[in-house]
Amino acid sequence: MSNKPTPLSGFPEFLPSQRTVEREVVATLSRTFELHGFGNIETRAVEPMDQLLRKGDTSKEVYVLKRLQEQDESRDKGMGLHFDLTVPFARYVLEHAGKLDFPFRRYQIQKVWRGERPQEGRFREFTQADIDIVGRDTLPFHHDVEVTRVMLEALGKLTFLPGFTLQVNNRKLIQGFYAGLGAPDVEETMRLIDKLDKMPATEVGKLLVVEAGLTDEQAAKCLELATITTTDDSFVEKVRALGVESELLEEGLAELATLINATAPLNTTNVRVVADLSIARGLDYYTGTVFETRLDGYESLGSICSGGRYDSLASDGKTTYPGVGISLGVSRVLVPLVQKGLLDADRKVPSTVLIAVADEDSRADADAAAQQLRAHDVACEVSPNAAKFGKQIRFAERRGIPYVLFATDGGYEIKDIRTGDQVPADPATWTPSDKHDLTPHVVSTGSTTGDDNEEKK
Amino acid sequence: MSNKPTPLSGFPEFLPSQRTVEREVVATLSRTFELHGFGNIETRAVEPMDQLLRKGDTSKEVYVLKRLQEQDESRDKGMGLHFDLTVPFARYVLEHAGKLDFPFRRYQIQKVWRGERPQEGRFREFTQADIDIVGRDTLPFHHDVEVTRVMLEALGKLTFLPGFTLQVNNRKLIQGFYAGLGAPDVEETMRLIDKLDKMPATEVGKLLVVEAGLTDEQAAKCLELATITTTDDSFVEKVRALGVESELLEEGLAELATLINATAPLNTTNVRVVADLSIARGLDYYTGTVFETRLDGYESLGSICSGGRYDSLASDGKTTYPGVGISLGVSRVLVPLVQKGLLDADRKVPSTVLIAVADEDSRADADAAAQQLRAHDVACEVSPNAAKFGKQIRFAERRGIPYVLFATDGGYEIKDIRTGDQVPADPATWTPSDKHDLTPHVVSTGSTTGDDNEEKK
Repeated sequence: MSNKPTPLSGFPEFLPSQRTVEREVVATLSRTFELHGFGNIETRAVEPMDQLLRKGDTSKEVYVLKRLQEQDESRDKGMGLHFDLTVPFARYVLEHAGKLDFPFRRYQIQKVWRGERPQEGRFREFTQADIDIVGRDTLPFHHDVEVTRVMLEALGKLTFLPGFTLQVNNRKLIQGFYAGLGAPDVEETMRLIDKLDKMPATEVGKLLVVEAGLTDEQAAKCLELATITTTDDSFVEKVRALGVESELLEEGLAELATLINATAPLNTTNVRVVADLSIARGLDYYTGTVFETRLDGYESLGSICSGGRYDSLASDGKTTYPGVGISLGVSRVLVPLVQKGLLDADRKVPSTVLIAVADEDSRADADAAAQQLRAHDVACEVSPNAAKFGKQIRFAERRGIPYVLFATDGGYEIKDIRTGDQVPADPATWTPSDKHDLTPHVVSTGSTTGDDNEEKK
Repeated sequence: MSNKPTPLSGFPEFLPSQRTVEREVVATLSRTFELHGFGNIETRAVEPMDQLLRKGDTSKEVYVLKRLQEQDESRDKGMGLHFDLTVPFARYVLEHAGKLDFPFRRYQIQKVWRGERPQEGRFREFTQADIDIVGRDTLPFHHDVEVTRVMLEALGKLTFLPGFTLQVNNRKLIQGFYAGLGAPDVEETMRLIDKLDKMPATEVGKLLVVEAGLTDEQAAKCLELATITTTDDSFVEKVRALGVESELLEEGLAELATLINATAPLNTTNVRVVADLSIARGLDYYTGTVFETRLDGYESLGSICSGGRYDSLASDGKTTYPGVGISLGVSRVLVPLVQKGLLDADRKVPSTVLIAVADEDSRADADAAAQQLRAHDVACEVSPNAAKFGKQIRFAERRGIPYVLFATDGGYEIKDIRTGDQVPADPATWTPSDKHDLTPHVVSTGSTTGDDNEEKK
């Protein structure tokens, strides 16, 4: 390989210390999901094209695969890279249904690919973290509450990130409202309301009349519904004040009230859940609860964690598998913060200790001391050369390694190069006085609060 | 999605409990690599085709990517999925050289894709775990010893797998031997010797004469060299007994002897390193140490962990980056063992405790008890329904959850459903008496020793 390669737009890569940030996020999410009984799976990166193209509007984003030397043009034509983790998960559930136990809780953290034009917060390769609970035939509503709680708790543990606002709504509520109002085309009404985050309300109001066939009064009520956002169940009274009635609306109000009442106690300064009646999730096939999430100060990124309830996540014609889940855009949150230098790790390497080497003849002794440290879980590395000690210390400093171990007459001494303190140490038992020094840690360099004006360019 | 999907040949997927086995392997490898100062990176799945096709012989295996709606045919033509982690790593080193510290130790555990015909132990999508150390301009030989040690130690910790035999040789040794012998085409001689694991020695001997231009006597000596395999440095005397001399040969003998002497003390019943002078690594661009690894009882899988020294892993024309590394075929080892049912986890879910639910009205109390357990790191799940307790216990049993927590008058009791013991328990403090019960564990169901006859079909 010659000449310096240039980055591929839309395919972000991290330096080792930046990757530590991503690993910390993935580990925190994974552990939280597991504490709630969610098991991990991975699905293959590839799905048949007919499955990937079920939703017409994403077809433009699919990467099609072809073997370079493929002779029979038709044979491999049918495969593409997955663009989310929901389509492959639905297929996995059907394929392995006989070997799974329902309700089935799973989390899945993998890369997905979309061939769309790269732009801020949008990538061609990115990592998603999904949790879903899937039932066979039925799935009680309390699982909607459960996934909300689990994701809230997981996000709340990512204290080095900006805050999260989880916005919840319910399709039964809005569809029941539009139907109770006498809207001639409930689906179209919902699709237009979904444009409120990109278009002024007055414009959406006009479209509701022209495209969804509403009267001016009906359109005004739909817009008014969408302005309701509360941190408790007071949205119920606000909706009732609009004077619309339907059975479906009542069901939606009850579900959303249950969810908000059960999750509001989990609000912290870092994460909060709100009932936001403007959330519709456009064209997706949700049938009840719907979620979106904004990252405080980075609202221009759009929703970074979305999902909801599907009454039919998958079906094989005989059995239907309802599901409820949320998908966090890990890269979407991390890449902008890491690339701006706002998040990094405090070390470039995992090592807590550098073992100094006085001369090449004593390398075997240095290796032995390193093995003694590793035997009780202290990560370390041996100096690659026998340079002057000052140079070896600078080697450690550049990498963020906090300690250097030196052989002395008949023993060892260890230097904390941050304080300069140097004390006798036995590599068979030494461990840093602060356990925190055993592994690299995420540090917020500067404010991660963000500046939405800067984001919006 | 309707109708039951069928598996895609060559794209293996694991059930949740099987995935636990893979996660345990990845976690053990990762932790061992980190203890030795190797930092983790991930590279994008996609590389420019001209980089992927540098080695002509792998071109048939590359999956080419194309965006479905791509208008300009030429624009995305040039991208394919990586087929190993070495090509992307070399590109990563060049692209980020200014921000990396050398010697740079990294490990990388990712999926790779090859469009080859699926067969036993060969997949179209599979996971590899690579460690490499890369220097700028120079990289001392002691790093060859280091990567051998690190991989030996990592494999040795995978005690639930069959044993590993790491076979080491040195290109300088064999090339120096062939040159000292007067072989007219050293490269071709090496390429033919590499066929010894697929072809009888007599056949290879004939080819050495016909295709590599050796005399019968020279061919016989080359074959004799390839029969030498020792667990200590006694190979040196055996090679000298063949009466061939060259400077390069001496250099190779010294390097291999150093490596074997420094790593043989790490041999256990589970892993061992041997000097095996038949190992050549065919067409790859190695320049010194070369590695292959056999899985005991599964020799027909071929080498499941290979690598070696490159004097020029990467170069930008001005600076050369020498490297030494080994790549473990994680899927190649695990998929056959898991699919035969020889390896699995002792639970289908991460939960240590199932919280029983007496009736739906008490679900909130059950949720609260669950949160108390999670707060001190005990994974648990709440029963999805308020079925009879016997049914809830069977629910836990089917998933391998060892404990069930019941509310009693004014408190809780916990039942170990393996022993039937039931005792009072406070969810705020309860933890299993055996810490082992806190997480799922890998179990070898049946012998993983393997039966190579069965493998060979």
